[in-house]
Amino acid sequence: MGLTHFNEDGEAWMVDVTEKQVTVREAEAKGMITMNEEAFQAVQKGTNQKGDVLATARIAGIMGAKQTSSLIPLCHPIPMTRCTIEFELLPKRRSIVATCKARTEGKTGIEMETLTGVNVALLTIYDMCKALDKKMVIGHISLIHKTGGKSGEIINDWKEDE
Amino acid sequence: MGLTHFNEDGEAWMVDVTEKQVTVREAEAKGMITMNEEAFQAVQKGTNQKGDVLATARIAGIMGAKQTSSLIPLCHPIPMTRCTIEFELLPKRRSIVATCKARTEGKTGIEMETLTGVNVALLTIYDMCKALDKKMVIGHISLIHKTGGKSGEIINDWKEDE
Amino acid sequence: MGLTHFNEDGEAWMVDVTEKQVTVREAEAKGMITMNEEAFQAVQKGTNQKGDVLATARIAGIMGAKQTSSLIPLCHPIPMTRCTIEFELLPKRRSIVATCKARTEGKTGIEMETLTGVNVALLTIYDMCKALDKKMVIGHISLIHKTGGKSGEIINDWKEDE
Amino acid sequence: MGLTHFNEDGEAWMVDVTEKQVTVREAEAKGMITMNEEAFQAVQKGTNQKGDVLATARIAGIMGAKQTSSLIPLCHPIPMTRCTIEFELLPKRRSIVATCKARTEGKTGIEMETLTGVNVALLTIYDMCKALDKKMVIGHISLIHKTGGKSGEIINDWKEDE
Amino acid sequence: MGLTHFNEDGEAWMVDVTEKQVTVREAEAKGMITMNEEAFQAVQKGTNQKGDVLATARIAGIMGAKQTSSLIPLCHPIPMTRCTIEFELLPKRRSIVATCKARTEGKTGIEMETLTGVNVALLTIYDMCKALDKKMVIGHISLIHKTGGKSGEIINDWKEDE
Amino acid sequence: MGLTHFNEDGEAWMVDVTEKQVTVREAEAKGMITMNEEAFQAVQKGTNQKGDVLATARIAGIMGAKQTSSLIPLCHPIPMTRCTIEFELLPKRRSIVATCKARTEGKTGIEMETLTGVNVALLTIYDMCKALDKKMVIGHISLIHKTGGKSGEIINDWKEDE
Repeated sequence: MGLTHFNEDGEAWMVDVTEKQVTVREAEAKGMITMNEEAFQAVQKGTNQKGDVLATARIAGIMGAKQTSSLIPLCHPIPMTRCTIEFELLPKRRSIVATCKARTEGKTGIEMETLTGVNVALLTIYDMCKALDKKMVIGHISLIHKTGGKSGEIINDWKEDE
Repeated sequence: MGLTHFNEDGEAWMVDVTEKQVTVREAEAKGMITMNEEAFQAVQKGTNQKGDVLATARIAGIMGAKQTSSLIPLCHPIPMTRCTIEFELLPKRRSIVATCKARTEGKTGIEMETLTGVNVALLTIYDMCKALDKKMVIGHISLIHKTGGKSGEIINDWKEDE
Repeated sequence: MGLTHFNEDGEAWMVDVTEKQVTVREAEAKGMITMNEEAFQAVQKGTNQKGDVLATARIAGIMGAKQTSSLIPLCHPIPMTRCTIEFELLPKRRSIVATCKARTEGKTGIEMETLTGVNVALLTIYDMCKALDKKMVIGHISLIHKTGGKSGEIINDWKEDE
Repeated sequence: MGLTHFNEDGEAWMVDVTEKQVTVREAEAKGMITMNEEAFQAVQKGTNQKGDVLATARIAGIMGAKQTSSLIPLCHPIPMTRCTIEFELLPKRRSIVATCKARTEGKTGIEMETLTGVNVALLTIYDMCKALDKKMVIGHISLIHKTGGKSGEIINDWKEDE
Repeated sequence: MGLTHFNEDGEAWMVDVTEKQVTVREAEAKGMITMNEEAFQAVQKGTNQKGDVLATARIAGIMGAKQTSSLIPLCHPIPMTRCTIEFELLPKRRSIVATCKARTEGKTGIEMETLTGVNVALLTIYDMCKALDKKMVIGHISLIHKTGGKSGEIINDWKEDE
Repeated sequence: MGLTHFNEDGEAWMVDVTEKQVTVREAEAKGMITMNEEAFQAVQKGTNQKGDVLATARIAGIMGAKQTSSLIPLCHPIPMTRCTIEFELLPKRRSIVATCKARTEGKTGIEMETLTGVNVALLTIYDMCKALDKKMVIGHISLIHKTGGKSGEIINDWKEDE
């Protein structure tokens, strides 16, 4: 069938990675939240000063990444050895781009952790801005880069205009 | 400043909802994941049969919605009294739309729960399909509807083409 | 179909309890673990003295009961207002019976919390005794009593011999 | 005293496994839930179709296994590298047997994870069927097989008739 | 015996609060961390600018307060309706004082939540400063104020010199 | 700036430990809670008999230590291989001293786990005694000893009189 999370009988399982090599694996994911002008400026004003939405979202995203195997049913618990979340403000689009990078030395990749980190960071920005904008959109969440493991290195363009 | 999650000194806090009325509050959020043809067909084949990606994602999304106040720093713990996650397959777009609806009877709204439910459901679909597609995109996550509370009823179009 | 955790289309959901009355609801569950003579005596010796397996299992069971809605997918989060775990030693059977009682004032029953409490307590006893006995059996876990809600009061005999 | 989870003074501790070898360790546990005819048929009808109780229970069991060290006080956190949950329907007994297998490469065994996985899976079946049967019994939970570690390989018959 | 968390037989239990009135309850706790000059200045420089240790500690403290009933065995889950964490820098003592205030409308008090919030905030400051100071001391953690419930209003001096 | 949990731009991150050696690392932390005579005697009476506050606090502390990386934002998840919590009663001071020792074989130290273990143990004693004393103070929490890693072995006096 092709989907690795199911055995022959179509039953979901946590894939067996016991015999895989312990190697360094990295991943990077990006995502974006778009808001109205009022909310965007409130975030912009607060950056690195009082009322820092992004500092809060960064912490939430890193903590969320650590919870990945508790949230995603068939994800393996893995030992995260590095995690960063960076933000970029795009004033013309009234948008904030979140990038999560993570590393591990283990038997399986860390893509889901970076995607979860991006998601929780963007959800946190949403939560903190929703008093000013009820129509925010979270999107363009995708994997940008990964190394290690069977599929080796993968580099994707970030599709910010689809 | 306008952002309610900060006090006068710009310090983040969990907003005081103690004096708010206990009323019924509802919310609905939508989001979408887009994939390649191979992954989309694998999901489509499995629906309600063997290898059901969507059944797994539905459970993960409902469980994720229940974890919202543990993930989003300034969210209040609230007693969820109903939660559903539905999926719609869009073959032309090779996409799956997830809709999460939730209800509570409490002092504050349940929007973040529905957004978190959608996010975790889509992340789970991603996890289960990533062996077949390393370029999937999660997006168009937004609030569609909410009732109750000070801001009353809000109905948003779902922006699936932006 | 009869199973309330599925809608008409067979999709799992968290049942809507929003309109239910807030009333006092109680439940009680029992379960048992059977072990060899060496392990049973080790537990018996430790009761209320040094090396108290049951005190540890009691704490784990109460804490586990509080995690019920995080473990059981379609369970509603409910505000537990009372929880006890008691043990009874049955020397002839080399068994320990665990009883969990809980109460809440809410919209839905607390049966799953008592069953989870019993399970986690018995698993903890297992964990603490497994160095002495690799063939322990956990069983006879069932609901003994519940009050409140639509199904009203239910009293079951505890089937300890099936 | 024999119980390894206590030091000389009878104080509970998490056993020191720091100097143990990192090896592959496996375990398998089984358990069973017995119900009335109506509930059993509802589960049977739903298998791999609409309203799939077992698919839900499988996900909950795997996720529960991952939470073992958070639930059982003196359990070590271990990196699970494989986890499966299978079900077998026994129509004559109106029962469902759950089997959880898991693997890790680490310093300590994975028995508690398989027992927890079985327990949470059976509790989930209970939760989903309780509208049809208030007298279900969960039992016969025991370790069937383990490899690795000081106690080496252990094979137990599954005591389904005690 | 006097300790309310034990029944007549000395068995620990979660006290029965089912019949208590639902009222507004508040609490406030304080605590302090003392460090060397180098670490203190690093924190002071970062306040509300880049590298804001206190902003991170504030978020961790609020999130930790929400986890109180998952951490403290016999604590009841309660619906927190407000939570703040404030810091005060004491340059002469090279110390940072953390104050956590919380409110709920429920059947039991919120003292443990404020104490846990202070503790997790101070532990977070410790974690972020430990590269500069291995001898930090966390202390003077106590309840300053509570209202509501049977014991009514209690006001304690903060013992910062003991 | 000196604080390792921030990058050049002052953004918080989880430090990269991927290239660090896997070695055995140990830590030990101490802390103390001071109470009135009535509460102290209740604890003293219960030690290793009925109503054992310390046994409960020990379990909570070990379980809390395991949650460290879920509570402290930038802490790495690490595999704890040993954890003990011991108590010492100081009748003249009406105080209880908690000591947490832990070990791991990994890429980063285990100090935060021991400090969290001490904190949660003391908070649990507080919770169980608060019916008898509303003025308890938790303090003198500090690292006593650590080995392994770049900073090697550190031995601190326990400052119980500051």
